[in-house]
Order: sequence, then C-alpha cells, then structure tokens
Amino acid sequence: MDPLARIEFALERALRAACGVNAPPRLGAALRHAVFPGGARVRPRLVIAAALACGDDAPELADRAAAAIELLHCASLVHDDMPCFDDAPTRRGKPSVHAAFGEPLALLAGDGLIVAAFRTLCDVDAEYAARVPTLLRIIGDAVGSPSGIVAGQAWECEPKADLHEYQKAKTAALFAGATAAGAAAAGAEWEAWIPLGECLGEAYQVADDIADAVARPEEIGKPVGQDAALGRPSAVRALGLKGALKHLESLTAAAVAAIPRCPGKPGLERLIRHEARRLVPASLANV
Amino acid sequence: MDPLARIEFALERALRAACGVNAPPRLGAALRHAVFPGGARVRPRLVIAAALACGDDAPELADRAAAAIELLHCASLVHDDMPCFDDAPTRRGKPSVHAAFGEPLALLAGDGLIVAAFRTLCDVDAEYAARVPTLLRIIGDAVGSPSGIVAGQAWECEPKADLHEYQKAKTAALFAGATAAGAAAAGAEWEAWIPLGECLGEAYQVADDIADAVARPEEIGKPVGQDAALGRPSAVRALGLKGALKHLESLTAAAVAAIPRCPGKPGLERLIRHEARRLVPASLANV
Repeated sequence: MDPLARIEFALERALRAACGVNAPPRLGAALRHAVFPGGARVRPRLVIAAALACGDDAPELADRAAAAIELLHCASLVHDDMPCFDDAPTRRGKPSVHAAFGEPLALLAGDGLIVAAFRTLCDVDAEYAARVPTLLRIIGDAVGSPSGIVAGQAWECEPKADLHEYQKAKTAALFAGATAAGAAAAGAEWEAWIPLGECLGEAYQVADDIADAVARPEEIGKPVGQDAALGRPSAVRALGLKGALKHLESLTAAAVAAIPRCPGKPGLERLIRHEARRLVPASLANV
Repeated sequence: MDPLARIEFALERALRAACGVNAPPRLGAALRHAVFPGGARVRPRLVIAAALACGDDAPELADRAAAAIELLHCASLVHDDMPCFDDAPTRRGKPSVHAAFGEPLALLAGDGLIVAAFRTLCDVDAEYAARVPTLLRIIGDAVGSPSGIVAGQAWECEPKADLHEYQKAKTAALFAGATAAGAAAAGAEWEAWIPLGECLGEAYQVADDIADAVARPEEIGKPVGQDAALGRPSAVRALGLKGALKHLESLTAAAVAAIPRCPGKPGLERLIRHEARRLVPASLANV
C-alpha cells in the first residue's frame, strides 16, 4: 500500500469507533469534519518515510503512530481556529469546526482528537507492545508542555517570548516527533532522528513564509500576504525573498545531512529533495 | 506511603516537566492552578484501591495510572468551566482557570493536562511495559468518544439525548476507568473491574444530587439547590429524598457485590462502605 493510503486507512480506523453509532452524532460529525478530507498529510508521511527507512518491521504500529501525529495536528488546528485564538472562519477550504458546529463542539472535538490519537496506539501485537511507551514519550513531548505544540501556542499568551523557541515548539516539535516516532515504531534508535525532523520543520516554516509572501492564493488554498499585513515574524521579512530561498536551500541540505545511518538512507534523501522542491511555489520555479 | 501521598507525589511528578523552567510561565501556572490543591481525589484513590486489592506488584505504574485519571478529570473541569459551557467563575473555592488566566490559556491548559496524563504513562520499568497499551485503551475509552467524558459532555449539544447514556459517559465512565486501570496496572484481569466502577460512579452521581438538594453550602464547598433551580435531571427530583437515599444504599450494596475475586477483597469492601457513608451529607446522618 502506498504511504498515503496507509495513512488514510489508519485515520479511518482511529475515527471509526469514536464516530460510531453510539457516539453523539454531532460530535462524530465534527470529528470527521476536522480530519477528512485532509491537507497534504506532511507529518504522517514523514512518520511512514522514517519507518520505511528503518526497515518498517512493524508497519501497523508505524501506521498508528502516523495517525496519532496527524490527529494531534488536526486537534491543534481545531483549537487554534477558535474565537479565543485566530477566530478563523475557514480551514482547508471549508468552514472551520467551530464555524460549522459551534464553539462547544469544537472544544470537545479537539479534546476527542487528542484522546483518539493516544488511544489508537493501544492496539498492537504483543511482540511490539514494549515500543508503545517510547511512542507515548515522543508524541507527548511533541505536543505538550514545555516544548510541544501546546507550549508553542501558549508562548503567544506571554508578555515576552523567544521567537526561535516559539517556532520550534509550535512547528518543529511535531516534525521532530514525526521522524522520531517513525524510527521508534520500527524499533530503531529514535533520538538520532530528532535533528532531521527539526530541520524539516524549520524548512516547512520558511517555505510557508515564502508562500505567504509570493504565492497566488489559488496555489496554496488560503489567503496570502498575511505575515506583512499582521506584522507577523517571517523569514521573508527578516531575510528578503532571495535570502529566504537561500535559507530554505541550506535547511534542505542540512536535513539531508541529518539523516541517520539506516537501511533506506538513499531513498529518504531522494524523497526529501523531491518534497523540498514541492514546497517552493510554482510561480517561483525560475527565480 | 498512604494512597493520598502516592497520588500527590505522582501528580507533582507528572506536572514537574510540563511546568518547568522551559515552559511558558503563565501556562505552567495555569496547569498547576488546575491540579493543586485538589478536591477529594476520589477517582485516583479508586485506582490505588483497586491496584492494592489486586496485589499492587507495580506500584509506580499504579501511581502513574492514578495521576493520569486525575489529570484527565482536572482537564474536563477546566474545559467544562469555560464560557462556552458552564461559564463558571469559581472551582474548588478559587477562580476557575479561565477566570484567573483567560480563555486562551484555559483552553491550552486543558489540552496540556490531557497530553500530560498520557505522557506520564510512558516512564515504566521494561518489565511492565506490556501493561501500558492496556492502560491506554482503558483510559482512552473512559475519556474519549463514543462513551467517555468527551462524549458525555457532547450529549449536552445534541437535540435528543438518553439521560442514562449521558450520565454513564459523563460520570460513570471515568470511575469504571479508575477501577479497571488500577487492576490493569497490577496485572490483573481488568474487564471484571468495570461493573464495580460503574456502580460507584452512579452512586457518586446520586450522592451529588442528594447533596445539591439538602446539604448546607459550607458542607460541600459549592452552591446548593442548582438542580431544582436549573431544571437539571436529579435522583432527588426523580425519586424524592428518601427514594434517592434508598437508591444510594442499593448502589453501595451492588458495588460491594461487584468486587471481583482478588486478594484484597475484604479490605476493599470495608473501604467502599466507609466511603459511601462519607458521601451522605452530615445533616442527613439521622434521616
């Protein structure tokens, strides 16, 4: 099965019970709305890529880890979109969860997705059960406090915040969790996979800043020019467009250099270079 | 160490990293505010009691399971108190989290507590690692959708809800999770411990209805008469005071009868009878 099919299957499996006939129907609909159809599924694809590079000896566990990472990403989007944060009316081209279902159900859907993410790690062959605590640690650290998504978002509520720490917690931590979880699901030494995920997370953030500055809205499916309009920190504002593109290139090279020794290293290298090219908006192909 | 000391120690350990020097300071303060000082810690005491009755061969794992259950209970209180649900200004005699720290940090503190609850299950001796997936399943089911706390709260957002299903998911599920988690942490057959938890959860709900109807506010530390004032379902409204007291008595007897065969059965029986007496407000001692 190709990685994306594995991911969609694992997400469907994780949500099937939570949204089943016994669930409150509107909650079930809100949970599905938050997860399907997805975006690019960048983070879970990274889980599968790392697992494959490490031999992928327990593919179901890797799929479950990938689903957990994506469900937590979706949960953070649902809660970030709520009125007390971004008050975003749309997400992935349709109404945000609170716009479609109201604030109470958006709050509960986010909570339910967090629970479903951890819950999906429990069904595992006895042979691989000992890997579950490691996955809990990796994934918990990537999304909790002090250095995961929750902390990243909370830095927005502090009078003073270090920009690097903020971006690292809000974006890079889940990428690092993705590569580490993929390796851990395959029984590999996961610590070595953190720097790769951090490089990719930073690259993704820079690419997002570039897209915001220069892409056409229809290219990226959301409004552009938001960083400048809202005075938000951005690699393009800090380094200029050429500087940001150069930075993205050097982050890609650093990511490739950070791939740990593993059976599937050459394939992972190709994948990262390919994905890095996809991150640059088509309108910049000739810059 | 007595059970309550074990619980407070385990909660402190679970929050230490999340609230450490690297955490956003206001988030750290909000997390602590939500957990300390606690209420009666009824649910985690039930985890420890079940583990002890089953031999408690892995006490640290039981403590971690107890902390997880209590952190999830605290998370549900933080989110239930928010303006889009109960809009409660106080909790446990002090400002609710959103009243003290604002809505964004209350939302994030609840999320952070859910993550911390699952994260605290990861540090476990290799010998007992295989019990962790079981704990994930039990605890995930007790708090998620379709039949845990999140679902219970979500039934409030449905046009039609079955009262029994609603109360079972909102209250009894976490009690059932507590007894089952205690047994599972000690390596016992956990399914047999579900009916006991469900009986105790229902008893707790009935006792809460009785207290709301007849206790003095200073006895229970919160306003009384809310069920009648708000037209909420209540055992006292359905059965009358004497009927509700009789129902509580029969639920206590059913709980005692539901204790599975285990080494510590007589001690657990005494504990349940003792706790049941504590649930009845002192002003009713002679009814």
